Formats: sequence, C-alpha cells, structure tokens
Amino acid sequence: MSNPSKIIYTFTDEAPALATYSLLPIVEAFAASADIAVETSDISLAGRILASFAEHLDADKRVQDDLAKLAVLATTPEANIIKLPNISASVPQLKGAIAELQAQGYNIPDFPEDPQTEAELQARARYSKILGSAVNPVLREGNSDRRAPAAVKAFARKHPHSMGEWSMASQSHADYMRGGDFFSSEQSITMDKAGDVRIEFVDKNGKVEVKKQLALQEGEVFDSMFMSCKKLREFFEATLQDCKETGVMWSLHVKATMMKVSHPIVFGHAVSVYYKGAFDKHAALFAELGVNPNNGISSVYDKIKSLPASLQEEILHDIHACYSDRPEMAMVDSVKGITNLHIPSDVIVDASMPAMIRSSGQMWGKDGKLKDTKAVMPESTYARIYQEMINFCKTNGAFDPTTMGTVPNVGLMAQKAEEYGSHDKTFEATVDGTMRVVLADGTVLMQHEVEAGDIWRACQTKDAAIRDWVKLAVTRARQSNTPTIFWLDPERAHDLQLQKKVEAYLQEYDLSGLDIRLMGYNEAIRISMERLIRGQDTISVTGNVLRDYLTDLFPIMELGTSAKMLSIVPLMAGGGMYETGAGGSAPKHVQQLIEENHLRWDSLGEFLALAVSLEETGIKTDNPRAKLLGKTLDAATGKLLDNNKSPSRKTGELDNRGSHFYLALYWAQELAAQTEDSVLQAHFSPLAKTLADNEATIIAELSAVQGSPVDIAGYYRSSPELTSKVMRPSPTFNAAIASLH
Amino acid sequence: MSNPSKIIYTFTDEAPALATYSLLPIVEAFAASADIAVETSDISLAGRILASFAEHLDADKRVQDDLAKLAVLATTPEANIIKLPNISASVPQLKGAIAELQAQGYNIPDFPEDPQTEAELQARARYSKILGSAVNPVLREGNSDRRAPAAVKAFARKHPHSMGEWSMASQSHADYMRGGDFFSSEQSITMDKAGDVRIEFVDKNGKVEVKKQLALQEGEVFDSMFMSCKKLREFFEATLQDCKETGVMWSLHVKATMMKVSHPIVFGHAVSVYYKGAFDKHAALFAELGVNPNNGISSVYDKIKSLPASLQEEILHDIHACYSDRPEMAMVDSVKGITNLHIPSDVIVDASMPAMIRSSGQMWGKDGKLKDTKAVMPESTYARIYQEMINFCKTNGAFDPTTMGTVPNVGLMAQKAEEYGSHDKTFEATVDGTMRVVLADGTVLMQHEVEAGDIWRACQTKDAAIRDWVKLAVTRARQSNTPTIFWLDPERAHDLQLQKKVEAYLQEYDLSGLDIRLMGYNEAIRISMERLIRGQDTISVTGNVLRDYLTDLFPIMELGTSAKMLSIVPLMAGGGMYETGAGGSAPKHVQQLIEENHLRWDSLGEFLALAVSLEETGIKTDNPRAKLLGKTLDAATGKLLDNNKSPSRKTGELDNRGSHFYLALYWAQELAAQTEDSVLQAHFSPLAKTLADNEATIIAELSAVQGSPVDIAGYYRSSPELTSKVMRPSPTFNAAIASLH
Repeated sequence: MSNPSKIIYTFTDEAPALATYSLLPIVEAFAASADIAVETSDISLAGRILASFAEHLDADKRVQDDLAKLAVLATTPEANIIKLPNISASVPQLKGAIAELQAQGYNIPDFPEDPQTEAELQARARYSKILGSAVNPVLREGNSDRRAPAAVKAFARKHPHSMGEWSMASQSHADYMRGGDFFSSEQSITMDKAGDVRIEFVDKNGKVEVKKQLALQEGEVFDSMFMSCKKLREFFEATLQDCKETGVMWSLHVKATMMKVSHPIVFGHAVSVYYKGAFDKHAALFAELGVNPNNGISSVYDKIKSLPASLQEEILHDIHACYSDRPEMAMVDSVKGITNLHIPSDVIVDASMPAMIRSSGQMWGKDGKLKDTKAVMPESTYARIYQEMINFCKTNGAFDPTTMGTVPNVGLMAQKAEEYGSHDKTFEATVDGTMRVVLADGTVLMQHEVEAGDIWRACQTKDAAIRDWVKLAVTRARQSNTPTIFWLDPERAHDLQLQKKVEAYLQEYDLSGLDIRLMGYNEAIRISMERLIRGQDTISVTGNVLRDYLTDLFPIMELGTSAKMLSIVPLMAGGGMYETGAGGSAPKHVQQLIEENHLRWDSLGEFLALAVSLEETGIKTDNPRAKLLGKTLDAATGKLLDNNKSPSRKTGELDNRGSHFYLALYWAQELAAQTEDSVLQAHFSPLAKTLADNEATIIAELSAVQGSPVDIAGYYRSSPELTSKVMRPSPTFNAAIASLH
Repeated sequence: MSNPSKIIYTFTDEAPALATYSLLPIVEAFAASADIAVETSDISLAGRILASFAEHLDADKRVQDDLAKLAVLATTPEANIIKLPNISASVPQLKGAIAELQAQGYNIPDFPEDPQTEAELQARARYSKILGSAVNPVLREGNSDRRAPAAVKAFARKHPHSMGEWSMASQSHADYMRGGDFFSSEQSITMDKAGDVRIEFVDKNGKVEVKKQLALQEGEVFDSMFMSCKKLREFFEATLQDCKETGVMWSLHVKATMMKVSHPIVFGHAVSVYYKGAFDKHAALFAELGVNPNNGISSVYDKIKSLPASLQEEILHDIHACYSDRPEMAMVDSVKGITNLHIPSDVIVDASMPAMIRSSGQMWGKDGKLKDTKAVMPESTYARIYQEMINFCKTNGAFDPTTMGTVPNVGLMAQKAEEYGSHDKTFEATVDGTMRVVLADGTVLMQHEVEAGDIWRACQTKDAAIRDWVKLAVTRARQSNTPTIFWLDPERAHDLQLQKKVEAYLQEYDLSGLDIRLMGYNEAIRISMERLIRGQDTISVTGNVLRDYLTDLFPIMELGTSAKMLSIVPLMAGGGMYETGAGGSAPKHVQQLIEENHLRWDSLGEFLALAVSLEETGIKTDNPRAKLLGKTLDAATGKLLDNNKSPSRKTGELDNRGSHFYLALYWAQELAAQTEDSVLQAHFSPLAKTLADNEATIIAELSAVQGSPVDIAGYYRSSPELTSKVMRPSPTFNAAIASLH
C-alpha cells in the first residue's frame, strides 16, 4: 500500500457523540492492525459554531472547519467517512449551544433575533448556515446503496418480529387513478446538448408567463407531467362510493413531505371531497377565513375558533354529518379521534403502506379495531407496487422473517435526481391554458393542456448521476454476487429515457457472471417477492422515489424496521460515506447518562457502518486485512445481537459501554479464530483471551459506576477529559485495549 | 404442382351431415378454382357399421371402410382432413342405426345383447369397435393448435358478450394445497434408452406387488407423484373453517372427467369432509350400503332409498345438519337444490372457473344470488393460474372483449402425452408402503413413501410427441408472427425434463425474428394477461392439462365461448386435421328439419376449418390460390358474422342453407374484389354479380320451402337424393354455383 488508509469518523452531538468516547478507542486499536488510521472530524453543532467564528476566538480556542474539509474530501476518491447522526438545529437548540459555549469562555456573538448592525447581520448570516439540515447536503454527493447487513438479517431470522396473518379473503387493496394522473401524462426528453429552458404558462389569450428558467446539462433527462384536478376529484369520489358499497374502510396515502408541493394539494382535494357537504355549504366563509384543505381538516377546526360559538357548532355539526354519508375512514389515533385526513404529514405512504401490509392489510378503524382497507394512492406510478404486494400476500400469506431473503436497494439520488416534488418546478394552474417547456431558441420541447387546478410539475436528472448509479448497481451486483433488477417501467416516458442510458452505460462494464435485468415495476417487485419467499436475494436498482419507498417496504417486512439498514452513499468522486442510525441523536439518552450514568444508545449502526467502511477500504486499497477486519466485525456484531448484548434501557443493566466491551470481545475472538491471516490471529489472540478471562471483572467495573449522577461539563460541547473518563470506567478493559498498540 | 391437392371432407352424422349436402357443392366449386379436389370420407355411424359387415352385404350395397383409409392417410404428409362432429354411439343409438339400415335392405346382424354363438360373438366384437369414441383415437395423431379465428375475434370485438364487473374489494380467490399434493411430490425422469419398467407397491413387510408393466421408449419422459390423503383432508377442513370465518362461499373445482381416476377420489374426500358429521355417525351403515362419496352426496340419497323411512329421515336430518356447521356451498342449480358436491361431473374446473371469473368472481348461492367464493382446487400445479387471473381482475377489472388481444394455444397431446388421469397408472394405496418405478434390471428409478388412502399416479410423454410439439410451436410463432411462451414451471420436476428437451429442439429451427420464451405458469399467464388488456396477442405453448384449461379459459373471456375456436391437429406425419364445432351433432336439429324444413345448424366451424385447411394447402403445396381462397373465405366469414347472417333458431327465418348462400355471396365478392390474382378475380366476378343480383330471389326460394315436413328417408343414413333435394331448394342458387365449373 502506498498510503496508509484513513477512515474519517465524524464527531457529532448528544448520545452518538457520547458513545464515540467509548467506541472510538476500540475502533482505533483494531483498525491499526490493518494499517488504517481513524481520524475524527468534528461536525457537531458546537464545532460548526466555533469554526464559523474562528476570528472571534483566542488562538488556543480556535477550531478548524472540519465540515468544509469533509466537503472537499467528499469530492476525492480517498473519502471514507462514517457519518453519525447530528443535530439539525432549530433556533432554540442553536441558542442553547451558543449560551453553553459562551459560558465555557468562547467569545462568540449572541444569536441576533432581529439583526440591525453590520456585525449582527453578519453573525445572523453565519448562524443561518448552521441551522437546520446543514450537514447532509454538503456530504451527500452520491447515489444510495442500502442493504440489510448479514448480522441484522441473521438476528431477524432468529428473533423474528411479529407479522399479521393474511386471509385469502381479505378485501384490502391499493387503488389508484387509471388516467389523468402524472403517470399517464408524463413526457420526457434527454438534452442532446447543454441548453437553457423556460417553463412557461400560456393562457387562452396567448399571454405567456415564464414560470421558471433552468440551465440544463448535456445528457440531462428532463420530464414534465400533470395531474388533472377534475379527474383526481372524480377518482376520490369513486373510491368513496366504492367503499360505501363494499363496506371496506377508506384511507389515503400520500407523501406530503417528499412531494412537498404536489402531494399537499392532492391531500387537500381528498379533504374537500370527503367533507364535500361542509366545504360546499360554507364555501364563502371558509374562503374568508383562509381555510386551506391542504393543511387537513384540523386546520378547519383551528380557523373557526375565532367564530361565534353557534357558528362554530353549526360548522362542526356539518363536518360530522359528512361521516354518515361517507365510508369509515382509517384513523391515525382512534383514541384521540385523529383521522387520516387530520393533517397531511400523519400518513406518509412509505411508512403507512408497509405498516398496513405488516398488519394483515388492515388499518385502525374509529372503534380501535383493525379493518380491511382501501388504500387510496392517486398517482398510479408507484401505487401499483403496493397492490402487487397485497395480491401477493393474499395468495402466499404474510412474509416470514425467519426464512425470507432480502431486497437491497441501489437508488438514484445524486445531484437531486428525480426530485418530483421539487417545489421550484411544481405549479398549480389557476386558469385553463398550456404549460410548456421551451428551449432558449423557442423550440417547444414538451407541452400539456391544463385546466384550472391541475398540478403540473417538472423534474431533472443529470447524466452524471445516472452514470454513477449504473456503476454503483454493477459494483453492488458484483460485490454481493446477487441477481440485480433495474426497475424501469416500459410504459413510463421517463424510464424509457433512462433505459436507453442504462443499456448504453452497462456496456462499459464487465458483466460476465452477473445477472442484471431491466423490468417494469410490477414484474420487478413480483419476481423479487417470489424469490424472497424462497429465501433468495434480489438487488433493486431504482429511481429516487422507489428508493425511498422500497428502503422502508422491504426492511419493514424483513427486519421489522428500516433503522437497522446499512445506508451507504458511495460518493461520485470515488469515496464512500457510511451513514449510521436513523433514530436521531437522542437528547433523552444524554439526560439519563448525566442523571444515572447509564447510556442506552445502541451503537449497532456504527458497528455496521464501520464493517462496510473497513470492507470498502480493503477493496479499494487492496488491503486484505481491512476486509478481514470488516468480515470479523460483522460476525462479532451478529454474535452480539444473538447473545442479546445490545444496551438495555434500564439503569443498572448492560449499557452502551458494556455493549462495546462485548463487541471488542467477540471481534477479538473472531480474529483469533480465523485462519486466513496468521499475523492478525496472533495479534488478537491474547486480547481475546484477556477479555474473556476478565469478562466478569470488566462487567462489574462497568456496572459499579451506574446509578449516580455524573458531570461532563457541557451538553453541546462536554469536556473531552471528563466525558472520556465517564465513558471508559473499566481500568481492566482500558488496559486490555491499550495492550493492542 | 405435381399433384392436384386434395381435401378430405368427412361425412358424419345428423345435423352436420345434413348441412354438408348444402355446403359441400359450394366448397367443391370454389376449391376447384385453385385446382383442389374435395373428397368426402364417410365416417358416419351408419357408414362404419356397413363397412364392418361388408361381406354380409350384396355387392351393390357394400361400402368402403373410409375410417381405415383415413387412419392410413393420417400417417402421410398429404393428409388434409376436415373433421366434422360425429356420433359417439351409445348402445341405444347403435341399435337404432342397425334397425334403420336393416329396414333399408342392408343385411346386417342384430346387436347381440347376450352373444352366444360364434357368429354373435363375432358381431358383438365388431359392434364394440364402433361404440363410443371410435373415431378420434384413430385420427388424433398429433398435437393441438387452437386459436380464435380473425373473423370470430372481430365479431366478438364488435358484439361483445357480457362480462361481470370486478370489485377491488372482492373476497373471491382460488385456494390450493401448499404441500402434500401431486405438485410437491412430483418426480420425473427421461429414459436414456428404451426399457421396460414396473410400477410396484412394497408393503411394510417388504412384500412386492407389481401394479403395472410398461415398455418405455428412448427419450420418453416418465413421471410419478402422489397426493397425501391426510394432507388433502386437512386442507379441505382448513378451507371450510376459513370460509366459515370469513363468510365467503365455498366451492370445489376438479376435473373428474379428464383426471378420471384421481379426481373422483379427491372429490370423494371433499364430500366426506364437508358432510363429516353424517359420514362419521353412519360409517358402518354407509359401508354396508356401499355408499361411495366419490359419486357425490346424491349417491347417498340413492343408496338409502332401500332403508326404512324413519332411518332415511334420520340420515337426511344428519346430512342437513351439516349445513349449519359448514359454510355456504356454491350451487349447481339453486332451484333444484343441486349442490357443488352433488355429483362429481357437475363442476368441471376448466369450465367452472372461467364462468366464475366472467361472473365477477362469483358463483350462485343457495338463495340464487351470486356471491364471492373460495374456489378450492386441491392440486396446486394448475390452480395457481386461476388465482393469478383473479388477482389480475381485482386489480385491473374485468377483461374487455372489445379491446383485448388473444391467447392461442399449442398443446402437447400426441400419443397420449401427459395423461395424468390415465386410469391404468393411477392407484389408491390401501395400506402404508412404498410405490416405486423399477427398471427391468431392478434399478429403482423413482419412489414415494405412501400411506393408506394416498393417490399415486404415473404419466408418460413420448419424445416424438415433444419434438413435434416444439416444431408446432415454432411453426405457429412464425405463421402468426406472435410472441410465444412455453409454459414450463421451473419448480416442477416434469417441466424441468421438458425444458431441457425444448431448449435442445428449439436449436433445430431458424428462430430469427421470433420471440419465443420459456416461463413458469404464473409469470406466463401474468405476462399474457398484461398483453391481453393492451390488445396484444401471445401464443401459449403448454402441456396437456393446461391445453385443456387454457383453451376454455381465454376463449371464454375473449369470445364468450370456446366453441368458436379453431381446433387444428397438425398430424405428426405432416398432414393436418381441422376439427369443427364443439357442440356435438345435434339430434334436435334433425328433428326440426324433418318436421318444419328448417335447419338451425351453424356451419361456422366448417367455414373456419375450411379456411385453415385451404391456407395450409396453399403453404404446403406452394399454391397461392389456395391461400387466397382461405384468406377470402375468412373475410367472407367475418362479413357473415358482421351482417348477422348466421342461422336463426326460428323456422321461417334464415337457416343453415340461407347462411351458406351468404357465405358464397361474400366469398365470391371477396374474390372479385381482390387484385392479387386476376384470373381468380375474373373467375369469380360473374358469380359475385349473379348472387348479388339474385339475392332476393334466392332468399325467397330458400324461405318458401320452410314450414312443412320433409321426408329424407332415414335418420342415420338418409337418402342422398332426397336429402340433397331438401338441402338445395333454390334453383337460382344451384345454377349460379353450377356455372362456376
């Protein structure tokens, strides 16, 4: 090896940061045996604040801008980044962190609520860049590679989650539009050279309004499509009538979060159709009050609070009267009376449909009972896969986590690929006319006749992102030696453009021995499911929306949760980012540590990400020891799951630190037991023995400290010395790890 | 052409024979224009009787053995046989024919009921060969090629039959065993050389009983399989419990006719499980009475008639009591109280399932209403295709005959291929033991451990039949220029043997430009259905059972009936047989002719068969005029359907003869209108003009004769002179046809 390899381990916030104090020394010690350095990169909220105000600080208190460095690293082939969950700071969180840092002697400005001076304006500008999701956009420069790690899969097989039984007589189904939706109107082009385009609306008098201008790259795929408001409302009415006739419960499943402009409008039409009686009767008043059905029926309740009591009562009565004309609706919370149409973000299709399918195809009724349900998903593009799975479960019964295979995903998302909900290219027509996409020279590339209320949207997918996605799929197919399916629907305009590219770019690779196929969505999911129930694995290679849907759908069937999936972003420049844990950074865990010296954070995500990071290092730098470390770490993680050595929630029982001890023990044992590399075997055998011999002592030392409060001198930026002491309380364990060096 | 081509037009019985008197002169006249001779071959019941007793007859009354000649012809490449429906004689019919022939002066012996003398024994032996299905086994020396002719398809598109709507909330489904059935136990071998095998049963004491000896050919595929009696009964009980819980009606669908040994036993278990209460309580009495549940619950009613009234009442009460414990059962005739379990041949899967699917997935309940139904089909091998179609209809709605494509079939059936129900290789185990297939040298080829009650069966498929089937599939794919799917399930032992052969034999053909694929049943039917609803055609190439099922299933969706399908048996020696009409030979039609001089027989099947026969003649003898005759005949048939010139059932309206006139008119017009062949154009233009000009006259002449009785001097063998006169009553029409020569 020319250069010793380097893994960047991000230092973040709250529980993951605390756990890092315990885990990182172990990781460093093990990684060193394969000549791999593990460096931390401080992208914590506090770290980012300090880096933003470096010139305000004394020289000894200055910190580097690690995020900026990481952003540069992410564009190099050497990037190997383990990305732990970090705080997406709200304003209160940011102010809390500022106050703490100031108290620690860092001379940073207050957060200017109402900036006036030049200094305040500058401070506000800097703090704005730190707020919210400020890390991921900088680092996610690649497509998505998600899979269930072997250890997690083995655990689910041995300790299966519950799965509701399916009846062949189930009435549940997914219903979707058979015309008039985005699917049926989609047009798609590929730019043969770079060029500027305008999105225009032309009204019936020929007046042209430019809605948006975009510079498209050569090879970029550009789509446009619309959903007919009239057809959508007719469809909703028909589904309601059908449920009324068949006695099946009605439910709506959209993705108002991801499709953040189009789906709230779709949701709003469902609200105003379901509660048509009340909306029609009070149309003028609702308009005056600014009632927006897109915000859910709950917003009506909010808006009418200003009205006289008698009028409020009348409106509430009219809303409730709708329930007698309409079929029963699925509930989000039947105890609290929260319906499916309460607020638009409660029922999110990628989570709600797997939950329904896991629960025998049923959802909760208003009486708190599970019932057969019509799952209404207006847009047919992706809804069909759920109907396919429902039919499959009716025929074959519920999936069996103890025997089923797995469906990993390679998803197109780099450079904002296929962001169908992208707010800046979605428009709701206010009058009848034509929406069109026009080249700078006036050539009309695509156009749709729209009516008032129709939802028109466009979407970009860059060629470089597609090329990288194909490469990633081939790499994953090769590395997993697993049949691989590109989900490309021959009836979708967009997918036909992609198909041409995929077929061309696949030619650039050695595909010998690989089973890579292109299929429509229905066929793809069906074959994947047929293989699943026979214990066989199939890689799904999909666009951005299916990436999002499938990385919940299959994991929830296979593992009971999508949080245990490996989430890798192989960066387009050649590096890799390994994301851990979907559960956030867990403020409650920090509180428990400080008050009772027990950290319940589960580092499973870190173990899994690290194993892949090591494996990738091994492959990229031709370092067999790195691969071996990865493989044995996976085995150790499996053993840890198997022996139930994950942290307990209860103080006094095994916590995060004890779990790390067992990981080290099992990892050392795996390395001592393997015979591929005798040097590593010899290196780790003494540690394996020491840890095993001292298991009782170490566990006692780790348990002894629990139960009393500790002081780590900070929440957003605790004292490294104090925190390290708290997180490494076993001298026996620390000495054993130290002996590795 | 070296030889003028020859088409054999079979002369059969009853209505088809009467119609032949009218149609044949037209056919002869048209065919002559392409240098094709049309010869009749008398395979009527009367003809076969006379041929069998030639030496009893005076020289002037002797007839040739046309069937024997046809049997020889069928083994030559020149065979081109149009096979009309004939009488499969029962004993009463045979005796009726004998009496009629004797009265006509034919000196043939009586049918000896109780033969004693040498002469009587000989006569009985000869008559036995004439009884029953005596024609088809001699002539069907090939595989099956069935499709909806273009004209029929066009008619169905324009005049669609009714199709029940499907609800996405339908609870109907097909249920089948998930183990313990023939599918899961199937074993299959291919003989690497010819050899004798024994089917043996070995009991627990090692005693060997030879059940059957067979001489197998080189390359022959031999299967064995069994159905567990215990698992079958558990399955029936589970389906009944499930229906009881879900409120879905219960129904059983078997094929007791084709699977003539195994399926009656399966049916019997359904009866004794459904009526378990009564069968358990009266077990001893039922055994004494010889009650056999395989004959249906109706047989219990028959058997108990000999008992004292009070005991009869008790048993009936106990049978009726079962209905309260069991779910509602589908009815064959709710008015008459005939249930699904009444007799084993009432509900035959290949007819009952398409009917259910056409009726919104519902069957008739005891209250005479259509209801959602569990269709129980224990053997999973083929049942899965129905569940696939049910799921498809739930998702996509009922098929639309006006827009749907077509699924023709190429079916393996030559040389008794895949006769799974073949009675001589099916055994019901009476005690526990081993069923095995053993080579002459003692090598055990296949074996199954069976328990008392298990149904074991074997099945042969000859290599020559498979080779011919592959050839036929390639020919059909080429001639129809249509995507073609071999339905071969990769999870079936038998199909894996076939798959190897198919892949090898396909290599022998030029497949350029053809789309021929091999797929499992579920995938095959799914893709065929996806194409169907998009108006696309897909050829299904299947084994014998699926041939039987699919040539009802798809035609019933597409055409409303399977009777309008073209049914071709391309003979293995290279000739062709074209079967017409699935409706039998229709004795009631003859009665109407004799009493009212109106023949309602529809010669559509003959028109269709003749067109293919002409087309095949054209291809085989390189005779473009024959092809043109075929093509124009098809067009004429289409026009005839379109103009509603099929025979009416009512005396006084257009009948069979009038329909033939219109066929001649349209056929001549098509030939006069075409420009491919100017000689034929010139030849038929005068006829087209004459027939069109004289339409009113001819129709008047044809109508004038109707309403009075006629005498044709015989039923089984009418007078040719009298019959011809009755069947050709229009001098104008006759003269026009005569002018062609």
